[in-house]
This record gives sequence, structure tokens and C-alpha cells, in this order.
Amino acid sequence: MPDIGRKTWALPGSNIPLNQNGREPEFTTRDTLWMLNTTGDDATVAITIYYADREPVGPYELELKARRVRKVRFNDLIDPEAIPLETDYGAVVESTVPIVVQQTRMDTRQAENTRTSNLGFPG
Amino acid sequence: MPDIGRKTWALPGSNIPLNQNGREPEFTTRDTLWMLNTTGDDATVAITIYYADREPVGPYELELKARRVRKVRFNDLIDPEAIPLETDYGAVVESTVPIVVQQTRMDTRQAENTRTSNLGFPG
Amino acid sequence: MPDIGRKTWALPGSNIPLNQNGREPEFTTRDTLWMLNTTGDDATVAITIYYADREPVGPYELELKARRVRKVRFNDLIDPEAIPLETDYGAVVESTVPIVVQQTRMDTRQAENTRTSNLGFPG
Amino acid sequence: MPDIGRKTWALPGSNIPLNQNGREPEFTTRDTLWMLNTTGDDATVAITIYYADREPVGPYELELKARRVRKVRFNDLIDPEAIPLETDYGAVVESTVPIVVQQTRMDTRQAENTRTSNLGFPG
Repeated sequence: MPDIGRKTWALPGSNIPLNQNGREPEFTTRDTLWMLNTTGDDATVAITIYYADREPVGPYELELKARRVRKVRFNDLIDPEAIPLETDYGAVVESTVPIVVQQTRMDTRQAENTRTSNLGFPG
Repeated sequence: MPDIGRKTWALPGSNIPLNQNGREPEFTTRDTLWMLNTTGDDATVAITIYYADREPVGPYELELKARRVRKVRFNDLIDPEAIPLETDYGAVVESTVPIVVQQTRMDTRQAENTRTSNLGFPG
Repeated sequence: MPDIGRKTWALPGSNIPLNQNGREPEFTTRDTLWMLNTTGDDATVAITIYYADREPVGPYELELKARRVRKVRFNDLIDPEAIPLETDYGAVVESTVPIVVQQTRMDTRQAENTRTSNLGFPG
Repeated sequence: MPDIGRKTWALPGSNIPLNQNGREPEFTTRDTLWMLNTTGDDATVAITIYYADREPVGPYELELKARRVRKVRFNDLIDPEAIPLETDYGAVVESTVPIVVQQTRMDTRQAENTRTSNLGFPG
């Protein structure tokens, strides 16, 4: 199996809304990061969060094991600090091995949820 | 007509929800794989499914004929084993000829469906 | 202004549903092709439609003028033949000058529409 | 931190609908441009708007500071002129330093909003 992906990815546009409808956690409004590591080596992943009006915060460190997928809610990134709600942010994801990164957003501010999905931009 | 595409594609983020609303199969919650083969040669396609907490499963083998498009629901991949519902997974698609791969998700857990679509990441 | 884009694009996954809700034409279920020509030359665009179970059909020829955007509904492609409803298809777009191609789908089969959007795959 | 991105991006398909539902500005129908500058230098960004039936308009100039994200609603671009509603347009984004560009659309013409998101095409 070939190693697929890149070591650096950018996700320019995110914002975690405050309001939501529906059962939790199934319909919690969320921004989700998906990562796929097809290589034979465990990855150490470092996420940096960029804001509109202050310096970037990070790294948020995660492990992504060899031959595994991992889903992380940005809402759950709390060390070094939680991402504030209703705040525009972007993210850069750096990995020690090539990975593939996708972002999925679920917006449940209205009664019926709407979702978007796109790959990151490979650096 | 030029041959368009790549032989390896990654789709990092999927999850087939258990609950749904609406008539079946039109509104069955689903993850769908689209493949386009513009070449003059039939393709043999091998799909490998990656999970969060166990080793990858595959290959799931499919045929994609020359100059054809093919849509496959991940729900319908059953050999060597069905993909469990409510489980995070990613996929790698490998083809013997260049193809183009897209993923479409329809979520019908609420009364009004929502859909997402994105190309795979070319390896 | 630099010339942006490619001369060949692939859109692997489309299907024009039969059923719809809402006022026409605003909420007609549709698959839409967007094309942007940033160059100083008019483009001749040739679209080929790929099917699951028969030979490709085309070319559908269109003009896209210099420094212009053009939106085309796949529903409106009728020469050499209309694309049948409820049928899986893919498209290849070839242009005489570099262009940028995006696909937007609006699904109005249920009361509340849902939309998806993605760039084509550059050949 | 590496500089991620490109200096030129294209967004081929946009249209700001006239009608909307829900509280303003939270559910104002909108087309949004997201930009991420991971470099150590402030960026000057010039946006050119392409139309279907007249010459391009621009540049619309914006600043994007070093190590910052910025969200801009196309509805708010007014100098040299506002983008008319219900009109097809595309955009080219040029920056003095590498940036990453994403487009998010929220359509609130019906009671329940639907959203789409995709990266720009890097020039």
C-alpha cells in the first residue's frame, strides 16, 4: 500500500456556533477534523489554530496510529486552551508522516441540520 | 479523449448513521462512492477500509468498465465483510487504470435530508 | 491577470432526480456546471457525458467568452440528446483555453432543499 | 511554520439570492470568502469579480494580516461597486503572499438553511 497524503494541511474557515437544536451529542453543532494515516508508522499530529485578531494558539498534539482513521471535534481541543464559540478560526495540521485531512461541519442552529465537507489544502 | 485521473485515491472521513427518515431506498442514509473511468480499458478497483481501532479490511474488489461511471454505496460493500453502522472509517481506492473518485453523503436522520460531496484526495 | 485553470476537467458523480418541491425554476432540482474563463480569449467548451451502462454521449458544445463566468444546468443540455432523469452520469469538460470548473447540485425532493458544491478534478 | 498556500485563487461559481428567511444577520443568505495567512508577512489581497455578461470589476482591496484568518462576505464588498443580487459571478483572489482560500455559501431562501463549502482552485 503506498503512503498517501502530505505532512502539512490547511483548513482556512471554521466557526463553532453557540446555538443548536436536537439531541446531544448526535446533533451538537460541531466542526470535525478527519485524519487518515495509511502508512506503517504512528503519526504525531500538531494542530495550530489561527484567529482573526490575535496570535495563533498551539500546538494541540494528538496521536494518529499507523493504518488508522481518527475523527476529532474541534470543540474537544482544550489543551493549551479551548477554541471559543462563535469565533472565526482556521487550522494548520502538521504530521510526522503523510496523512489525509478532511473537515466536516454540521450546523444545527435550525431545526433541520445542514452539513458541509471538504478536504484540507495540502501544503 | 485524454486519460483523466489517478490510480490511487483516499477518502478520509465517513460514517454510516443508523437512523433515518423517509422512503427507502430513495432516502436511505448512505455514503456513496462515485468513480469515472474515461480510459479505453476496463479497471479493476480495490477498496481498503480503514478504521479507528482495528486493522484495515479489504480489498473489496469491483469492476469499472472502460468509458463508464459507477456509483457504489459503501453500505453495499459486504465481501470480505460489511462496514458496521455508526462507525468511523476511511477508504483507499486503488485502480488498475486512472480514474476519478468522488464521495457523496446523504444524511437523513432528521426529517429533511442534508448532503455533502467532495472529491477524493489523489495519491 | 494570469490565466487560471486547466483545459480538461472531470466531474465524476451526478444524477438529476425526477421529483422536486417548491417554485420553479428557483427550486427545480438541478445539477449545475459553473465555468470561469479569466483569459483574454473566448473558449469553446466541449462536454462529454459518461453513463453507467452505455457509451459516452457528446460533445455538447458551448461558448464561454473571454473574462466571463457561465452557469449551465445539465438539465438544459439537449444537443445531441437530453440527459435522462434518475440516471447516474459523469462529465468531462474540455476547453480550448484554461478555465476553472465547479459543480453545484440542488436537491429539492424534500420540502427543504439541500445543496452540494465541489470543484472538478483538473486533468 | 511553513508558508502554506498560493498567491492566486479562483472561485468560479457564486450567486447571492435576494430572498431569505430567519433572523438577520445570523441567517442572511450569503457567500463568504475565508482566507488564511500563515506567513509572517501581512498580505494585500485584491479580488476581481467576473460576470456573465459584462467586463470584470475590481480590484476590491483588503488586508489580511500575518498569522491571521479573515472572513469576508461578498455582500460586503462595495468599493468599487456592490455585487448585484441574483446575479451569477465568479471571483479571482490575488495576494502578495501565499494564502489559502475557501468559499462557504449559506442559502436561507427556504425555512431551513443549507450550506456548501469548497476550497478555491489554486492558480
